[in-house]
Amino acid sequence: MTHTNEKDCAIDLLRSKPTLTHRQVSPELEDILYKPFPVLDHGFVRVMDYMGTDDAIVQAARVSYGVGTKKVNQDKGLIDYLMRHRHTTPFEMCEIKLHVKLPIFVARQWIRHRTANLNEYSGRYSILSKEFYLPKPEHLAVQSTTNRQGRGDVLSPHRAAWVLETLKRDAEQAYAHYETMMNMNEAGDIIDPHEECLARELARMNISLNFYTEWYWKIDLHNLFHFIHLREDKHAQYEIQVYGKLLLDLVKKWVPLSYDAFCTYQKDSVHLSSKAVHVIHRLLKQETVTQATSGLSAREWSEVVESMNLYSFIEK
Amino acid sequence: MTHTNEKDCAIDLLRSKPTLTHRQVSPELEDILYKPFPVLDHGFVRVMDYMGTDDAIVQAARVSYGVGTKKVNQDKGLIDYLMRHRHTTPFEMCEIKLHVKLPIFVARQWIRHRTANLNEYSGRYSILSKEFYLPKPEHLAVQSTTNRQGRGDVLSPHRAAWVLETLKRDAEQAYAHYETMMNMNEAGDIIDPHEECLARELARMNISLNFYTEWYWKIDLHNLFHFIHLREDKHAQYEIQVYGKLLLDLVKKWVPLSYDAFCTYQKDSVHLSSKAVHVIHRLLKQETVTQATSGLSAREWSEVVESMNLYSFIEK
Amino acid sequence: MTHTNEKDCAIDLLRSKPTLTHRQVSPELEDILYKPFPVLDHGFVRVMDYMGTDDAIVQAARVSYGVGTKKVNQDKGLIDYLMRHRHTTPFEMCEIKLHVKLPIFVARQWIRHRTANLNEYSGRYSILSKEFYLPKPEHLAVQSTTNRQGRGDVLSPHRAAWVLETLKRDAEQAYAHYETMMNMNEAGDIIDPHEECLARELARMNISLNFYTEWYWKIDLHNLFHFIHLREDKHAQYEIQVYGKLLLDLVKKWVPLSYDAFCTYQKDSVHLSSKAVHVIHRLLKQETVTQATSGLSAREWSEVVESMNLYSFIEK
Amino acid sequence: MTHTNEKDCAIDLLRSKPTLTHRQVSPELEDILYKPFPVLDHGFVRVMDYMGTDDAIVQAARVSYGVGTKKVNQDKGLIDYLMRHRHTTPFEMCEIKLHVKLPIFVARQWIRHRTANLNEYSGRYSILSKEFYLPKPEHLAVQSTTNRQGRGDVLSPHRAAWVLETLKRDAEQAYAHYETMMNMNEAGDIIDPHEECLARELARMNISLNFYTEWYWKIDLHNLFHFIHLREDKHAQYEIQVYGKLLLDLVKKWVPLSYDAFCTYQKDSVHLSSKAVHVIHRLLKQETVTQATSGLSAREWSEVVESMNLYSFIEK
Repeated sequence: MTHTNEKDCAIDLLRSKPTLTHRQVSPELEDILYKPFPVLDHGFVRVMDYMGTDDAIVQAARVSYGVGTKKVNQDKGLIDYLMRHRHTTPFEMCEIKLHVKLPIFVARQWIRHRTANLNEYSGRYSILSKEFYLPKPEHLAVQSTTNRQGRGDVLSPHRAAWVLETLKRDAEQAYAHYETMMNMNEAGDIIDPHEECLARELARMNISLNFYTEWYWKIDLHNLFHFIHLREDKHAQYEIQVYGKLLLDLVKKWVPLSYDAFCTYQKDSVHLSSKAVHVIHRLLKQETVTQATSGLSAREWSEVVESMNLYSFIEK
Repeated sequence: MTHTNEKDCAIDLLRSKPTLTHRQVSPELEDILYKPFPVLDHGFVRVMDYMGTDDAIVQAARVSYGVGTKKVNQDKGLIDYLMRHRHTTPFEMCEIKLHVKLPIFVARQWIRHRTANLNEYSGRYSILSKEFYLPKPEHLAVQSTTNRQGRGDVLSPHRAAWVLETLKRDAEQAYAHYETMMNMNEAGDIIDPHEECLARELARMNISLNFYTEWYWKIDLHNLFHFIHLREDKHAQYEIQVYGKLLLDLVKKWVPLSYDAFCTYQKDSVHLSSKAVHVIHRLLKQETVTQATSGLSAREWSEVVESMNLYSFIEK
Repeated sequence: MTHTNEKDCAIDLLRSKPTLTHRQVSPELEDILYKPFPVLDHGFVRVMDYMGTDDAIVQAARVSYGVGTKKVNQDKGLIDYLMRHRHTTPFEMCEIKLHVKLPIFVARQWIRHRTANLNEYSGRYSILSKEFYLPKPEHLAVQSTTNRQGRGDVLSPHRAAWVLETLKRDAEQAYAHYETMMNMNEAGDIIDPHEECLARELARMNISLNFYTEWYWKIDLHNLFHFIHLREDKHAQYEIQVYGKLLLDLVKKWVPLSYDAFCTYQKDSVHLSSKAVHVIHRLLKQETVTQATSGLSAREWSEVVESMNLYSFIEK
Repeated sequence: MTHTNEKDCAIDLLRSKPTLTHRQVSPELEDILYKPFPVLDHGFVRVMDYMGTDDAIVQAARVSYGVGTKKVNQDKGLIDYLMRHRHTTPFEMCEIKLHVKLPIFVARQWIRHRTANLNEYSGRYSILSKEFYLPKPEHLAVQSTTNRQGRGDVLSPHRAAWVLETLKRDAEQAYAHYETMMNMNEAGDIIDPHEECLARELARMNISLNFYTEWYWKIDLHNLFHFIHLREDKHAQYEIQVYGKLLLDLVKKWVPLSYDAFCTYQKDSVHLSSKAVHVIHRLLKQETVTQATSGLSAREWSEVVESMNLYSFIEK
């Protein structure tokens, strides 16, 4: 299952025989089709197939609006309009299929997005690879004291070294026992012909959550944007953020107009509650507003100040 | 919105510039891409895009099973196995996008299949075309006396002529009033510059259910099989059956191995209840079984006899 | 199918035998269970069943956060937090089942919300009622000249009278022919014993889109909020807005804390694009901003000015 | 998170205050509401809430069929009919919410059923409990030699003892290091006030797949039947089968008529391919059929013989 020379040959083979098609083609995605982009220490994402381009979105929107609209809107303006007004169905007309390799604990967050199609490597049928995630020292951080689910400062080098050594040793031992229980090594060879082989579906329970799994994952563009919006966000766990950022890069190659619209109207947009709108109004009227007089809780106040970058307009 | 010469030109244009792709290609679908296949009197189905072929299903299944299985299974055997054992996720890896024109009462059945993406022509934005479905006389039948939702014998020619004339007259009048209320004709021209134009979203309520609408519909192969299984069935209303049968033809072109597996293990398969299995067993033991001694209700008995074609093995 | 005395008796009967339950109970919903709330001229919405209250949302969130959080958050604060940060899964833990009667053209918009369960009255099995929607004169408006899908000024009384008379006459004629084709009246009686009865599944195609249908519709609270957000909105067609507003009233009775959070953080919130945030910033710095210098299109500019109510802070 | 006395008190409290409701009530589910049913060594399932009974299914079906059908069908006959003909939407009108505690490797299979609502205990926020699954010796089996994903004979006692000891030792060590990395014990107390606390979201990656997690899971009856059909099946992994069987018991209490229909028409039914139907036909005609003459592959032949129990009708 490791991404070896053998696999690189398969990719070259797949790419060596381009065929003519009447379908819409995304030149930038064609350039990278089947090629793995590395993520974390052993993970990757590669595009296996896709359907549609920005044109498909425009085309679908115009079925809804009818022919009359054709002259009025330019493609970019139409895509911006659809994104701004949350007319999401035209974006569902594009589809992408990815091959992803990722740690199991990341996979468990990823799969919470239900509107997608999935085929995962099965530990009931097959032998899991000896590949597990070890963070870089600069990504090992203490528990945040202000955010129950976040990270704070980076660990001291000494502590980080101990953590990494422990993670590594435990994972190696877990895998060694996995092999011994199955009486079979990673390559699928029997270790001791006189010993019993525990069923793979049982032995796998000894594997830890930092081991890698892989899957094919197919999703439409609207739901992919939703995934990226949540997972590329700075509040997401670092180890899924890096996948989110890579997916965003792929979307940029695939559907550049939709990518722009997504950045402007979703990713970099700000959502203001009715109470936060009132605060902005008071500031526009040059009133002095503090958290105490804002009507917002301390937490919401700091969220609004940060998201709108209001630091220079309020009292310190 | 009518399928005119203008549209034929657009199709020729779309087909005139084939491009190279590294993706999997279905040669038979490429041949018919964008070309409308007529259904009923004014409807059509045309393939606008697709993703994947039989190969994509095999590829996805092998991610699940791992590399070891590669040598063992042939593609056809694997696809048959997946279909027989309802391993449905690999079939979700293929996707198709269709442009469909269909009467509104058919559209209302069609849309009950929720796992699909849809963009429909909007009567709020645009003017509906003057196109409505009129059945052929041989499809006008009396209400079934045995099946609350079925049809019985064909209407007598005289009665059929009256029905068709009435349907036609009412539809034409409904459309004429639709235009008059909007003060706008089908081409979008104002009829009387001194008259008020009722909002399109209101005027459309005068339109009857046999008028045509159109939409883009995108669905994965697994859910398409489910749709075809229910709608191509002889118990479905004739007017949706004809769409179901056309979709089945398109699937045959697209993914021939999956098509075969679907026919053998789904479409032409028989589902036997535990009680029906018991009946078969008694027949195999050469016992005489009648409805009265079968343990089945009269309705279920006749369903089993018909589906298993048991007529020559039971008492009349 | 009309909502007659017979039905009122059934409601009294259903309400006459309250039973003890250990489940969470919403007192305000219990008070109105099974009682129809009228909408438009013949429509209604009534609550048939529900599962969960605000407590269920808190409970589900705390499974995610674990016991430790219990002391920190109050229920209201937690629900506000979940809504503000789009943690939507706890809201999916509440479910409601409604019986809705609505015009077919409204039903066709409604059903575009796919994440719900539905059983609709079937015109293949049963005879449709002679009930169709006629707008009140004050809801008959001309096509908007600025918005392709909106309404403008109310029709003049003379024009409105003609429209209503035409809608009524066409609907009555369509229904009369529907009965004659089926050779059966609304009550299910054969009209002429010597005449053929056209199958109901065919005759129904003569019915127009303003006739009423009815269905059972079951949806979770998160998806219900999404429905209300889109359909209670002032840009939605009036005839579905009134259903959206009624659903919002029912939500207020059912889950009052979630209702408040929804109003503050969704319904009455404002979504600002990165470009709109920049405009606000310039206004806070007391710069003069016009559409021409804003970087926004004319349409987006007017949307931002309206949603943020910036009229007094910009040049006219 | 362990199911302690504290939790039992909470259950007694929840059950001590029954309230009157006008909703449909399932007496047998009320009896066991909130009470955990043990599964495996530390797991459980408990019903937290439910909506609807067999009556709700009948009621929903009758909206579709209209009033006329009322007299004809008895409830049981109607439910059998719906199940037999795969009219699945009425079964979607019932909903159940469960609290489940299960090993992570079981959770990873379970979550593949996408049409459900879920809130899982979060290892980012909270500390995982020191509870892991250890199979009973009689459930430790060798890898099947005929089925790539199954189990064969039970392990010898000596080998089983070694496997269990290894699983236990590795899990205990993984958990001990989990605590040390977080510098926090299971109870949430800091271990060494002078040491750094690794973020919980990172430390959890050392946990193995046999540790328990828990979640709230809400699903409609139709999708629950689908889950049970696949997971209660003898080909499913034992550790999810036991959950499937328990869910089936709960369904029997909840909706007894639907349970009966499910067993007869789904769980204990047989699905015959068109080729298998042909084999049955030849046997009914008293022809001798062998695998070689059946037109079936060896694997499919043995599946048909087993599912239809044809052993006494074919050549050995």
